[in-house]
Amino acid sequence: MFKFEDNKSYQMPAHFGGWVYDPGQELYYRDAVNLTYIYSTDRDRLADYLPEGFELIRPELIIGYMQGREIDWMAGSCYNLIEVSVPARFQGKRDRVDGVFALVVWENKTEPILGGREQTGIPKIFAAIEDLHIFQQNYFTNASFEGNTFLSLEMTGAQSVEGQELAQMKALSADRNLFGWRYISSGGGHGAELSQPILYPQKAELKSAWRGRGTVQWTQLKPEQNPSQWHIIKALAELPMIEMAPVMLSKAVAILKPAQARVLE
Amino acid sequence: MFKFEDNKSYQMPAHFGGWVYDPGQELYYRDAVNLTYIYSTDRDRLADYLPEGFELIRPELIIGYMQGREIDWMAGSCYNLIEVSVPARFQGKRDRVDGVFALVVWENKTEPILGGREQTGIPKIFAAIEDLHIFQQNYFTNASFEGNTFLSLEMTGAQSVEGQELAQMKALSADRNLFGWRYISSGGGHGAELSQPILYPQKAELKSAWRGRGTVQWTQLKPEQNPSQWHIIKALAELPMIEMAPVMLSKAVAILKPAQARVLE
Amino acid sequence: MFKFEDNKSYQMPAHFGGWVYDPGQELYYRDAVNLTYIYSTDRDRLADYLPEGFELIRPELIIGYMQGREIDWMAGSCYNLIEVSVPARFQGKRDRVDGVFALVVWENKTEPILGGREQTGIPKIFAAIEDLHIFQQNYFTNASFEGNTFLSLEMTGAQSVEGQELAQMKALSADRNLFGWRYISSGGGHGAELSQPILYPQKAELKSAWRGRGTVQWTQLKPEQNPSQWHIIKALAELPMIEMAPVMLSKAVAILKPAQARVLE
Amino acid sequence: MFKFEDNKSYQMPAHFGGWVYDPGQELYYRDAVNLTYIYSTDRDRLADYLPEGFELIRPELIIGYMQGREIDWMAGSCYNLIEVSVPARFQGKRDRVDGVFALVVWENKTEPILGGREQTGIPKIFAAIEDLHIFQQNYFTNASFEGNTFLSLEMTGAQSVEGQELAQMKALSADRNLFGWRYISSGGGHGAELSQPILYPQKAELKSAWRGRGTVQWTQLKPEQNPSQWHIIKALAELPMIEMAPVMLSKAVAILKPAQARVLE
Repeated sequence: MFKFEDNKSYQMPAHFGGWVYDPGQELYYRDAVNLTYIYSTDRDRLADYLPEGFELIRPELIIGYMQGREIDWMAGSCYNLIEVSVPARFQGKRDRVDGVFALVVWENKTEPILGGREQTGIPKIFAAIEDLHIFQQNYFTNASFEGNTFLSLEMTGAQSVEGQELAQMKALSADRNLFGWRYISSGGGHGAELSQPILYPQKAELKSAWRGRGTVQWTQLKPEQNPSQWHIIKALAELPMIEMAPVMLSKAVAILKPAQARVLE
Repeated sequence: MFKFEDNKSYQMPAHFGGWVYDPGQELYYRDAVNLTYIYSTDRDRLADYLPEGFELIRPELIIGYMQGREIDWMAGSCYNLIEVSVPARFQGKRDRVDGVFALVVWENKTEPILGGREQTGIPKIFAAIEDLHIFQQNYFTNASFEGNTFLSLEMTGAQSVEGQELAQMKALSADRNLFGWRYISSGGGHGAELSQPILYPQKAELKSAWRGRGTVQWTQLKPEQNPSQWHIIKALAELPMIEMAPVMLSKAVAILKPAQARVLE
Repeated sequence: MFKFEDNKSYQMPAHFGGWVYDPGQELYYRDAVNLTYIYSTDRDRLADYLPEGFELIRPELIIGYMQGREIDWMAGSCYNLIEVSVPARFQGKRDRVDGVFALVVWENKTEPILGGREQTGIPKIFAAIEDLHIFQQNYFTNASFEGNTFLSLEMTGAQSVEGQELAQMKALSADRNLFGWRYISSGGGHGAELSQPILYPQKAELKSAWRGRGTVQWTQLKPEQNPSQWHIIKALAELPMIEMAPVMLSKAVAILKPAQARVLE
Repeated sequence: MFKFEDNKSYQMPAHFGGWVYDPGQELYYRDAVNLTYIYSTDRDRLADYLPEGFELIRPELIIGYMQGREIDWMAGSCYNLIEVSVPARFQGKRDRVDGVFALVVWENKTEPILGGREQTGIPKIFAAIEDLHIFQQNYFTNASFEGNTFLSLEMTGAQSVEGQELAQMKALSADRNLFGWRYISSGGGHGAELSQPILYPQKAELKSAWRGRGTVQWTQLKPEQNPSQWHIIKALAELPMIEMAPVMLSKAVAILKPAQARVLE
């Protein structure tokens, strides 16, 4: 008979054995290339997507693309993600934390999706996401679902960021509080077994950065083209792009700290 | 602000809206082709993988491949899976149920993996799984992870099953109790938030069937080839194949009943 | 030293050995599902794409999707294709043949692309092409290149074709003359080493058929999204859809006869 | 009617237009990571794969893996390849050139395969080829066909190469003569339409390099697992690995010169 041990952590399938968690555990992504798009949008409509306990800091939508490689916990494998988030403050009975609330994260591999959802409530779902196409000073990528493009990202005219400004960017990206909301339904759809906000602390060692003109193009899909995500794409596509900031490209070492993730109260 | 409604079900990301669950909901897979391999193995070693509350009915490993198409909840899309299970009885304080306990299920799309894990504790993980290669009376498929083959399945010399025997197969496959164990860890690895057996009832309307010679070949992988699954493959590959039953091929309509899934006690 | 033998056929890499060609060779695709869209378009613009020796029979664009499985020469593997062709007559010094001229064929596997181009001049190129999504009486598929959708195909409200009409369809699809133009450039771009029309005879044993409403949606791509195909997509997308015939769905055994392929004169 | 123009080059489908060839054309791969394995093997068996006109310079098998990115002619897209070649001299009636003869090249995208085969006779065929997995000082990749692994490559304990030795490597890799043999069969398998040796000159600007221990593991496949390539894999897997040189890793800008490719005589 298989027995769970109290000092071990497990992930389904649990019955092939667990592991002793290292409280100082950090997950290194040694080659992370990031594209960050930020645009201001409608405050009220954006706030509608924040669950209880969270409030909007600024009415901004942040679209972060990461091409992650040399990922230690995957023995050096790689994946790409597109994280859509908003600047938010959690104000609970016990905790008060500023960070970004993840509205949705698309990733092109299943494995990081599972851990992110189950352990930290980050709402990761699958999409095909292209590696960066890099041509002259231009960068292109896109996300699609079973052949249907729903998001195209471009950066053109990239110019290197240096000196004082680079130092500022390094400082700003050094620490990051990512918020998720873990929801696990009961069997048979009778309410929630778990429904809770979670803080997932992350770090980045930024190495170099570029600034350019950014283009974000959402393409809405019909329900039959993407039955379980079309409403998410629609919600995001319908948020007005009021003002687009310059897009930033950076190369960094990204470091996740799942051992410091915790349920907020 | 987003508010959860009590009468609705949600899946992460929850804050884009939930749905009212239909208690009679059935998920149709209108074109399901199944290959079923069964071999007897070592009773004690197999029993080591069954969590508390479950006991082995027979020391058999069941490897079920399904090529599922015309799947209604995916608007007619498709995926393949390989389910490894054992005949087991759940004997709890309240419930006593016979069925099969899912040791692991590989699937080649993320979407069904998420629902299966989070709602019903079926230990689904990702692998590339080939569609059936069908050549003369022979069938071939395999499972691999990032280019590394770990399971090859063959059926040769398929002969049609008819009459009384087909009728028996139809009756036997009409209802199926699939057991999972849902485990959700606490943030930061401090034990379990959820750890519970779940029953997931399923049905099948078998249309036609064939019998043939089956070959199952496990190939163990090095940890660096598949960091989070190699130990599962090793555990299964090391179970002795004592006697292989004839492999069965069937075409069916598969019907899942998530609304009737429930936590066992 | 490797020596070519006169009675053998070769395909690159040739030096691992060739094979004796069977003059009666037929390639069976035992499970072929076809969607056929036909629309009338501008005669002059369409005729511009026909090389010397070919003339347009009718100003129609034919878009044929095939989901091919149980393919003998691939040991039972499968692939999908989208063939865009026009009804054409070849009128040469020696030959006069009616058939369809292949403007372009997208396929989602490399292997059939190579043989088709090099042996028979069929202008096959790569795209990701979805398997058929089948939901109620509706069928969906699409073609994309590196995440960028460029063609979506739908069939809705499929109704079975029976009796006399089915018999006619069987007769019409029994034989098919497919025309390609084989062009192999000289090294270094100095003109053509080969430039010649080729006839590739094919057969089909149609089993069943359905009729429905069809939708064809072209999406033009920017050169940076598909550098070597965007001009082809643009050319086809700009042809007006004057009148769309009912879309036909059929299940068939498709049979190719490469041994009877021949250069036309 | 479509007319070919004498001063233009074409690739199938030709009838959508050609282009004026730039005689100085160079194709830049701005981010090329190369792993090079060399092992001595049986001279006679290796020589059997060299067509008339070529002779073996050394009985060595060279396996070169390239992860190519920022490829200009693909608008910044990427692909991976595994090239298996031997050091060879072409001695013809007119030409005498030293270089490497390509026995086979696997690539994971169709587009470069087509141009390489048709314009320069490089025997490119398709395989799934993983991006480099990079973990500590170790590198892993593999090649598979429809889920069946046939080649695994490792490099462990990478140490940087500096100074004089790096300078030598830069000089050695600056120019490279790659030989192919273009073979295009006649329609219907009646001998060859084209059968000719071709020289394809290439360059590399090597930036940095590492040396380590290399492991090459071939896995033979059954004909039904890879009907058109199993004999190639078998031929290569059966060549003895007599002595393996240290494996070299390099980062470079790779530059192809198709405009200087020419048929050898």
